[in-house]
Amino acid sequence: MSKLLTIGSMAFDAIETPFGKIEKTMGGAANYIGISASLFDIEQAVVSVIGDDYPSEYLKVLTDREIDISYIEIVNGGKTFFWSGKYHNDMNTRDTLTTQLNVLEHFSPKIPEYFTDAPYIMLGNLHPQIQLDVLAQLPTRPKLVVLDTMGFWMNHTWDTLLKIIAQVDVITINDEEARQLSNECSLVKAAQKIMQMGVTYVVIKKGEHGALLFHEKDIFFAPALPLEDVFDPTGAGDTFAGGFLGYLAKTDDISFNNMKNAIIYGSTLASFCVEQFGTERMLSLTKDEVLKRLLQFKELTQFEIKIA
Amino acid sequence: MSKLLTIGSMAFDAIETPFGKIEKTMGGAANYIGISASLFDIEQAVVSVIGDDYPSEYLKVLTDREIDISYIEIVNGGKTFFWSGKYHNDMNTRDTLTTQLNVLEHFSPKIPEYFTDAPYIMLGNLHPQIQLDVLAQLPTRPKLVVLDTMGFWMNHTWDTLLKIIAQVDVITINDEEARQLSNECSLVKAAQKIMQMGVTYVVIKKGEHGALLFHEKDIFFAPALPLEDVFDPTGAGDTFAGGFLGYLAKTDDISFNNMKNAIIYGSTLASFCVEQFGTERMLSLTKDEVLKRLLQFKELTQFEIKIA
Repeated sequence: MSKLLTIGSMAFDAIETPFGKIEKTMGGAANYIGISASLFDIEQAVVSVIGDDYPSEYLKVLTDREIDISYIEIVNGGKTFFWSGKYHNDMNTRDTLTTQLNVLEHFSPKIPEYFTDAPYIMLGNLHPQIQLDVLAQLPTRPKLVVLDTMGFWMNHTWDTLLKIIAQVDVITINDEEARQLSNECSLVKAAQKIMQMGVTYVVIKKGEHGALLFHEKDIFFAPALPLEDVFDPTGAGDTFAGGFLGYLAKTDDISFNNMKNAIIYGSTLASFCVEQFGTERMLSLTKDEVLKRLLQFKELTQFEIKIA
Repeated sequence: MSKLLTIGSMAFDAIETPFGKIEKTMGGAANYIGISASLFDIEQAVVSVIGDDYPSEYLKVLTDREIDISYIEIVNGGKTFFWSGKYHNDMNTRDTLTTQLNVLEHFSPKIPEYFTDAPYIMLGNLHPQIQLDVLAQLPTRPKLVVLDTMGFWMNHTWDTLLKIIAQVDVITINDEEARQLSNECSLVKAAQKIMQMGVTYVVIKKGEHGALLFHEKDIFFAPALPLEDVFDPTGAGDTFAGGFLGYLAKTDDISFNNMKNAIIYGSTLASFCVEQFGTERMLSLTKDEVLKRLLQFKELTQFEIKIA
């Protein structure tokens, strides 16, 4: 069974959307990624940090999915990372209202020895130095390292960010971040520039407008499933990454053709994530529902062109 | 050979984009639609109105493509419709600087008798009363009528617009217009509401974010081809419509499955249109280039999912 190791934040989120408000829910990249990837039969460990205010029923969500949590550091007297945000009416843009790093500020992840040989590594959005430190703990080069990052690190830790980008295989960023990172408006040019920074695959997430996968001269595109309502986009990007990497780990095939499937799986899982607040929908999700929606994706995108 | 009849504007366009500026070029929906549909072996007539300031070399573009222009009315002493616009840096939004309707203001299209039996009708963006008058001249119901419209008619001629919508088979509008017409933010809900207005198929054009086709509960999506540069988006929507309808006319098959192909052809042709100013790129386009790009669309979107 393929091993997937995820390093990322665990958090309390407070979310406000045009549809409602939730004061405190389970959040953070590592949770979304772990839960999403758990839809595949793979071996998972999550490395993160929390305060002792973090409820054990949140941890149980991971252990129920047979995710190894033994290297999630619990800081005595520490407070868990807290994020709050408010979405605008179009659901495409949001304001971050609060970011309290708390215990995340001094996060120094330790990789379980029995996971240092994991072929699949997900570096969730964190300070790029932390991401570098993780790779430095691995005795051999993993098969595939996926990096997530955001604009904040481009503004504040540019040189360190460039170092980690040069050491990973795949970067997942949104369209705005791709433009910022490359200083190119065209996403095609942006992806080319980012590949020149040393990464082999670029995944650009465009939210409701789908996702693009770039590799050398190849491009693959998956739309977002058109939904009647997007209830809460929080975590959709991480859920996408979890589906992408979970599928690759399960199939253990990192060819471009198989990455197309991984993108479709990621998009499928993300389409569920946005249907309810936070992780709610992902927690009730069944494999049968996933299969049905994969077929919807096929219907939505596949054609048999006749030349006229 | 299937007949396609297009009613629409012919114009002088002045266009400014971040890449350059052109003071006077051939424009108008009928030109873009006719040129695009001429990539297919079909019989075409264009009905429009121009002033005697309209150069004969512009008309020759249509006759060179064996498009019947005998019912393009030439108003003596009249001035041709003039539009000028300026695109913003992101190329997704534009300001209309000038709209001089000129001879278009009193346009009263007369349908050639030998085209009243055309099974395929394209009603380009015009006053909805003119669109109604065209249909009233047809002795029998055509096989497929496609309607284009815009927000202006929603603001100023709502009741008339609803009448024409109820009489056509397909409406093509952009995402913003779909939201305005339906008063729904979700495009899925918007399309459902618009189908309730009496139209059987809804095509929502999202510019660089692709196009959606809705029919009952079915949805198909085609991305826009990711391009290094979008040079000038003018006419892309009409080029899309011309490709869509040209393909349907040529294959003479209006099943949902074949409409998927028509959407792909429309998107393919539109991806050329934006590469140069105005109609320039479409005028040099060859069938071989179209075929190559269709294959690119396949590469971009098609996958063979393996269930994991």
